[in-house]
Amino acid sequence: MTATREEFEARLRQIGAERYHDLHPFHHRLHGGGCTPDEVRAWVINRYYYQHSIPMKDAAFMSRVEDPALRRAWRSRIEDHDGTDTNEGGIRRWLRLAAAVGLDPDYVASCQGVMPATRFAVDAYVRFVRDKTLLEAVAASLTELFAPKIHANRIEGLLRNYAFADDAALSYFRNRLNEAPKDVAFGLAWVLDHADTAEKQEMAARALMFKTDVLWSQLDALWGAYVEPARIPPGAWRPGEGLAPGAEAA
Amino acid sequence: MTATREEFEARLRQIGAERYHDLHPFHHRLHGGGCTPDEVRAWVINRYYYQHSIPMKDAAFMSRVEDPALRRAWRSRIEDHDGTDTNEGGIRRWLRLAAAVGLDPDYVASCQGVMPATRFAVDAYVRFVRDKTLLEAVAASLTELFAPKIHANRIEGLLRNYAFADDAALSYFRNRLNEAPKDVAFGLAWVLDHADTAEKQEMAARALMFKTDVLWSQLDALWGAYVEPARIPPGAWRPGEGLAPGAEAA
Repeated sequence: MTATREEFEARLRQIGAERYHDLHPFHHRLHGGGCTPDEVRAWVINRYYYQHSIPMKDAAFMSRVEDPALRRAWRSRIEDHDGTDTNEGGIRRWLRLAAAVGLDPDYVASCQGVMPATRFAVDAYVRFVRDKTLLEAVAASLTELFAPKIHANRIEGLLRNYAFADDAALSYFRNRLNEAPKDVAFGLAWVLDHADTAEKQEMAARALMFKTDVLWSQLDALWGAYVEPARIPPGAWRPGEGLAPGAEAA
Repeated sequence: MTATREEFEARLRQIGAERYHDLHPFHHRLHGGGCTPDEVRAWVINRYYYQHSIPMKDAAFMSRVEDPALRRAWRSRIEDHDGTDTNEGGIRRWLRLAAAVGLDPDYVASCQGVMPATRFAVDAYVRFVRDKTLLEAVAASLTELFAPKIHANRIEGLLRNYAFADDAALSYFRNRLNEAPKDVAFGLAWVLDHADTAEKQEMAARALMFKTDVLWSQLDALWGAYVEPARIPPGAWRPGEGLAPGAEAA
């Protein structure tokens, strides 16, 4: 039976309450100050791969949208990440975080030390958006519903617990606090409007669950590789590599 | 043997001289004032499908670009077509041309009367950009090298020969005269930089030829369907359909 708009929105929010990666132990370790400097670096390196892929995901979405108005509404997501003449953009802000934690931003931007498991999860998301219905693609973006809380926690937790954390280093998260709400309001309304049968509601809910899996599995991979006992996979970043000139190995 | 940069650029330009659609008889008929009003309408309706697909093509390209700087450089193409807060964009300008020739812009925007042959050619271009190498995708865009001449001809020929033609109706072409040169300078330099082996030069040249085929076959389809003796395919626009309120069938 088709859920009402309100019931369906509640179902989507419940997915976040049960599956969003703010529930992952790595999240608590990071924000609680329990991560070693190298664990933070590993997180920054691997999460960069996600950041740098998000505009590709959004372009893949736009490449399938026939309606110029919907493309126009979506385009600001790419601008927010890639930057404009007046906004350096999320990717450059993330590289400032990389520098702040003692990494060479060029090394991070090269994606050299990214774990295969990170690539597989993130690439699966780009492919999902390229291949599935537009409804599923928009629904997958709705993890942004749950992001403001994690960004606010992150700013607070990192500032309190790590010497590197200052306004410049954390500007990525502060900006997302402003940018994400407009995107998610648009995306949520679009999904609620278009998921007008029980079948489509099911598809949208599963797409959002898929996306929580993409985020969760990235933290699982970080935990498995870098939290003691570390099992860093072949080719992935090893502590001491990719440091900024003058930065010290931890 | 790898051609020098100058030789290779000359080869690309020669492809335009031999295969660009300004050589097609429909082009001469249109610009020379030989088209009936319904032939002009058929051209506007079918060419709209190309216009409305170009940002999808550019988004497909961006969805495959890992370098944020290249994505940023490419993004203005989408803005030029879909529009921004300060620029109505090429698609809306094309719909003003549609109104000027007596068509209902909503009908044209629906793509309802577009010929299957037009869709096949244009969709083949979007898929080409999604599937081939980045070099081939950029090389295919280089028909823009030859576009300023055809746009200038078009403005002059349409103004001289058709009552509907005025500055508002032709603003699409005037704007492309300003926008296309920056894009093509970037694209040409990128192709010349990246086609650094004989094999890659061959790939790039063939990609450009493919694109001239995409454009040429659209005019072939128009000629076959709408120029006497007309053989309009099933489902495609028939004269008298999709007129603006108050517009007269020709």
